[in-house]
Amino acid sequence: MTFRCITECLSSSRWCKCCAGARVVDLRSDTVTRPGAEMRKVMKEAEVGDDVMGQDPSVNDLQTSAAHMFGMEAALFVPSGTMSNLIAVMVHCRERGDEMIVGDLSHLHIYEQGGSAQLAGVHSTSVTTLPDGTFDLDQLESKIRHGFPDPHYPRSRLICVENTHNIQGGRVLPLSFLQEVRSLADKYDLKVHMDGARVMNAAVALGVSIKTILQHTHTVSVCLSKGLGSPVGTVLSGPSEFISRAVRCRKALGGGMRQAGILAAAGKMSLVKMASRLEEDHRNAKTFARGLGYLHVFRRDKSLTPLLRIHFKVLSTINVVVGVIKLKAPVCNFLVVERQLHESIEIKS
Amino acid sequence: MTFRCITECLSSSRWCKCCAGARVVDLRSDTVTRPGAEMRKVMKEAEVGDDVMGQDPSVNDLQTSAAHMFGMEAALFVPSGTMSNLIAVMVHCRERGDEMIVGDLSHLHIYEQGGSAQLAGVHSTSVTTLPDGTFDLDQLESKIRHGFPDPHYPRSRLICVENTHNIQGGRVLPLSFLQEVRSLADKYDLKVHMDGARVMNAAVALGVSIKTILQHTHTVSVCLSKGLGSPVGTVLSGPSEFISRAVRCRKALGGGMRQAGILAAAGKMSLVKMASRLEEDHRNAKTFARGLGYLHVFRRDKSLTPLLRIHFKVLSTINVVVGVIKLKAPVCNFLVVERQLHESIEIKS
Amino acid sequence: MTFRCITECLSSSRWCKCCAGARVVDLRSDTVTRPGAEMRKVMKEAEVGDDVMGQDPSVNDLQTSAAHMFGMEAALFVPSGTMSNLIAVMVHCRERGDEMIVGDLSHLHIYEQGGSAQLAGVHSTSVTTLPDGTFDLDQLESKIRHGFPDPHYPRSRLICVENTHNIQGGRVLPLSFLQEVRSLADKYDLKVHMDGARVMNAAVALGVSIKTILQHTHTVSVCLSKGLGSPVGTVLSGPSEFISRAVRCRKALGGGMRQAGILAAAGKMSLVKMASRLEEDHRNAKTFARGLGYLHVFRRDKSLTPLLRIHFKVLSTINVVVGVIKLKAPVCNFLVVERQLHESIEIKS
Amino acid sequence: MTFRCITECLSSSRWCKCCAGARVVDLRSDTVTRPGAEMRKVMKEAEVGDDVMGQDPSVNDLQTSAAHMFGMEAALFVPSGTMSNLIAVMVHCRERGDEMIVGDLSHLHIYEQGGSAQLAGVHSTSVTTLPDGTFDLDQLESKIRHGFPDPHYPRSRLICVENTHNIQGGRVLPLSFLQEVRSLADKYDLKVHMDGARVMNAAVALGVSIKTILQHTHTVSVCLSKGLGSPVGTVLSGPSEFISRAVRCRKALGGGMRQAGILAAAGKMSLVKMASRLEEDHRNAKTFARGLGYLHVFRRDKSLTPLLRIHFKVLSTINVVVGVIKLKAPVCNFLVVERQLHESIEIKS
Repeated sequence: MTFRCITECLSSSRWCKCCAGARVVDLRSDTVTRPGAEMRKVMKEAEVGDDVMGQDPSVNDLQTSAAHMFGMEAALFVPSGTMSNLIAVMVHCRERGDEMIVGDLSHLHIYEQGGSAQLAGVHSTSVTTLPDGTFDLDQLESKIRHGFPDPHYPRSRLICVENTHNIQGGRVLPLSFLQEVRSLADKYDLKVHMDGARVMNAAVALGVSIKTILQHTHTVSVCLSKGLGSPVGTVLSGPSEFISRAVRCRKALGGGMRQAGILAAAGKMSLVKMASRLEEDHRNAKTFARGLGYLHVFRRDKSLTPLLRIHFKVLSTINVVVGVIKLKAPVCNFLVVERQLHESIEIKS
Repeated sequence: MTFRCITECLSSSRWCKCCAGARVVDLRSDTVTRPGAEMRKVMKEAEVGDDVMGQDPSVNDLQTSAAHMFGMEAALFVPSGTMSNLIAVMVHCRERGDEMIVGDLSHLHIYEQGGSAQLAGVHSTSVTTLPDGTFDLDQLESKIRHGFPDPHYPRSRLICVENTHNIQGGRVLPLSFLQEVRSLADKYDLKVHMDGARVMNAAVALGVSIKTILQHTHTVSVCLSKGLGSPVGTVLSGPSEFISRAVRCRKALGGGMRQAGILAAAGKMSLVKMASRLEEDHRNAKTFARGLGYLHVFRRDKSLTPLLRIHFKVLSTINVVVGVIKLKAPVCNFLVVERQLHESIEIKS
Repeated sequence: MTFRCITECLSSSRWCKCCAGARVVDLRSDTVTRPGAEMRKVMKEAEVGDDVMGQDPSVNDLQTSAAHMFGMEAALFVPSGTMSNLIAVMVHCRERGDEMIVGDLSHLHIYEQGGSAQLAGVHSTSVTTLPDGTFDLDQLESKIRHGFPDPHYPRSRLICVENTHNIQGGRVLPLSFLQEVRSLADKYDLKVHMDGARVMNAAVALGVSIKTILQHTHTVSVCLSKGLGSPVGTVLSGPSEFISRAVRCRKALGGGMRQAGILAAAGKMSLVKMASRLEEDHRNAKTFARGLGYLHVFRRDKSLTPLLRIHFKVLSTINVVVGVIKLKAPVCNFLVVERQLHESIEIKS
Repeated sequence: MTFRCITECLSSSRWCKCCAGARVVDLRSDTVTRPGAEMRKVMKEAEVGDDVMGQDPSVNDLQTSAAHMFGMEAALFVPSGTMSNLIAVMVHCRERGDEMIVGDLSHLHIYEQGGSAQLAGVHSTSVTTLPDGTFDLDQLESKIRHGFPDPHYPRSRLICVENTHNIQGGRVLPLSFLQEVRSLADKYDLKVHMDGARVMNAAVALGVSIKTILQHTHTVSVCLSKGLGSPVGTVLSGPSEFISRAVRCRKALGGGMRQAGILAAAGKMSLVKMASRLEEDHRNAKTFARGLGYLHVFRRDKSLTPLLRIHFKVLSTINVVVGVIKLKAPVCNFLVVERQLHESIEIKS
């Protein structure tokens, strides 16, 4: 059976005759996960209130639980990972002339439309993202504005790390790296924010608690709508004072939602139940990747945007990257690359 | 029976002994409405997809329906009214040095944290909001920067109107006013955006279709989570090109939500079913107001922020404004002002 | 003799046959003053250094002298009044979500291209400028965001006053008004910045020292290139910490000039010598205005921009406003309005 | 003779006993040049007008001459190189969500306080600056946002090059590189702006006219106050429409100066006379560097900020970089690094 038209079918969600027979596993991204029956039931029964007034019990419950789980003082439910990261930038860099340091291949730098500058007026300087998602620490230190307050320079305020690292194929940052980044940050009185959209995957891959990872960061953004299966939402977490300021930024950006408890109830389930299922997903992904074997795909164009990148469901530490090669003969439309955990392999077609 | 402690009880959602006996109708704002059983069922069963990829069928359905209902080319589902207004400002005023004209008592100017300047870099000049929510048209015209492109001036791009008008007590803008504003805008090549958070109430109060109102504006923002009962969400609507740009702004602000269909399904119900129930709410409000009679309240402090403003559920054209007067003797905690439709009356205590 | 073409001649600086015989006194604005021979000599001989490194002795001398004269801790030489005001806004409102209160007819609000929002991201709310350049203090107080830190509101940080007031015809603010504004500011922990582009005229008109006026403000911007005759430059003055921050903002805006001592030397002369000549100018203006008598002009279009406004040289407290009326018969091209000091009179043509 | 205290003396401009005997050649930067007697005479006699009204004949003359010399349609006189670059960014990236590509060691990215983001809201992505000041063209192409208008991405609008390159030691960009950058820009409809603060040095070093270099760029910023000896000012040049917009940005930033002809007259002399003297300076620098021989200095700290960097007067293609090494024995305070034209050599001490 061939699936020549599967790309079109996937993107339209309408299946043609040719594809209708296929059982499709949508591996494009772990953002396409849909809430299951149990989660839908939880949403239906969620107790809600007006969260703009701080009175939605399900939101409050999620925030308290998340903060506890993350080992942080407080947490805030926001509509998306992009907003969560943007708020973190806005709060950490809240004075005129503040600057942040980000990886040149970080989601924040590449995929968030430059919102840090466009909306928040925060200049960023980038450090080279290494293939394992880390930075060279000397280069990182060199990007700090030691010359401040000389008026030629902005003021370094924030270092952003990403864990697991999206563009680098779901790599897990080593704890030792995080510890070193934090040390450096402390030395120069900077803050560390982790774009932890998929940090739960990192915890599972490392076999440690999420707290163990987050002890090295001041603030973290954790997405509930990726591998954890919630329909919508991200939790931003950090010190109480940070969260108080974050509430203001969320409101200004338009992220204040009224009876958000509907979503937060699903989010709570994601944190409590789904996170523990990630291990199983990791196993499945490995099996799947092995089964498909040494097929060739992973095509990045020069802008680092894959033509079509397909992640395994609830799985980002092992990206099973799948692409569609346009062949004259429709031999095979799905080719999978990725052989081993933490190794991205490009195989010639 | 007296309810001395009711303010505290309301804001904590925990009822003390004294208040427990009372049947509380929460009239603080029409934003505190909660989804009913039918709406929860709709959400539970909503078909969803990844809306960031444009593939959530429920979101797409809501957007198509809303655009159709509003007589506009396209529509976009966003998390809040604040974001919807901010996006409108960002798209209409998208070049460096653009300016907008807003009412000095508009929600946009007073209650949205100055996001237009803070985030979008758009300067605003204000025109006096008259007691009926309109502006003096000569004053409005005088605020347009006729001197542009002289470098002393920003460039006027946008006039914002608010219908119904929140701070002025839910006033409905006359159609003739909207027509005149649009004429003026056309004359100077400006756009008109309506903050129509509660514009459905205006349509009901005027006994006209929503299209009849919106024919005078280029774009509109309509909230689903106020009197229409949805838990979360606002629809921004306008020309297709405007909405294409709005999608980018929404993403930058962090308003791109994944399986937003859960919320959009409720939103569709709000538009289709709940809107038609507003008439009944208006009737109830009048009855309620009459029943309470000539009581005195409505206390605004100087910042225009009522100490406690209580709107009737799903009702903004007749704001039944209720405040708590701190008396030595706890004679009465709830005093209601407002006697007739479209008239706010302050009565001496 | 008639001067039908004088507007064109004035704006091109080329005199046609018709106008060539006229002795033209350019009264369009006190910004058209040119440095005289003595001032040019001072510039030629100015000792200079690299002011970006803080090493220009003439700049340092001007800054020290100005601070001393104004009764402030420190001062900074900047290229223009617009930059000076913008820097003041940037320093006083330096945190995300800060807001300022300005007069709706202030130069800052009307003639500076909305730079406060466009460049600095500072939202402004305006208070009605009364005909004498002051505000109603109750209205002013009502504009302060008493609701902060409720996330609906920005944070009020700054009140801007303008003295003498440009659009209101060079009006001098009463000392009692300044004292009351400062009281209010102190009560709510706000700062007061004076756009004192022509504050030297105010001192002369009131017969008090400039310090007496400035005791009521935290910071002030004083232009050297208007009635004081310098070719270029403005002094921004205030507390030392404010000026340290201002140096950074000036650099970011591109106002750091190298051997600025050439200009600062002229500026020093303006402050020390020219300021004392303002009294004479005021006398001349009165004489001139009386001589021209009750002629009619002063035409403002709706944007508040006079078709042609002509100020007397080095004189802003008595604006001798001159316009060109387009008559069929070229009886008279120059008509002057203004009869008495501190009174703007509109006479029917 | 030793100069142990020379750093302090240099920075204070006060010479201690120890240093008083020395004839000091201040090589810290070519920005410390002071106007000579002839230039001071020109300034003294400059014809001036109000440049905010476009009526300063000396400014107009400089602008016309510069545009002609650069082979551009128009030019604008601004207070500084930082403002000139910032305006270029503001005009080229004038729509919400525009992005620019800059060298990671460019003056714009390192030394201008992040004004592009802070003030203009423009996100930047950086490309690695090679030791000769150029970029790898493949890397450059990879930084263009091919994914636009996908809302994840900003829109690439501008490529900035720097010639000569400051941090890389005054390197001259090869014409072939400029041609290739322009080709790439044309292919993707981007603009090229050259930070040509010292581009006159490049023309001299290459032995070509300045036009030959600038044919490859859309706009250029040329400083008059560096090696060309003017006290203050930079010329921004480009197409007429670009300059019309630049006038607005200059005004908003506060760079509109009144009788700026005083400075422009010096600027004209810099362009016409001083530029031709650069050849002599280059010779002197070589001689000087050879004379000092293989001494070792050039110490950069990790932030790329030299402890003390000393450029030869009016010379940037051959940076004779001089530092002060803190030795126990005061053998020698001045050590010079740099041996040959276009080669920066670090020699061990």
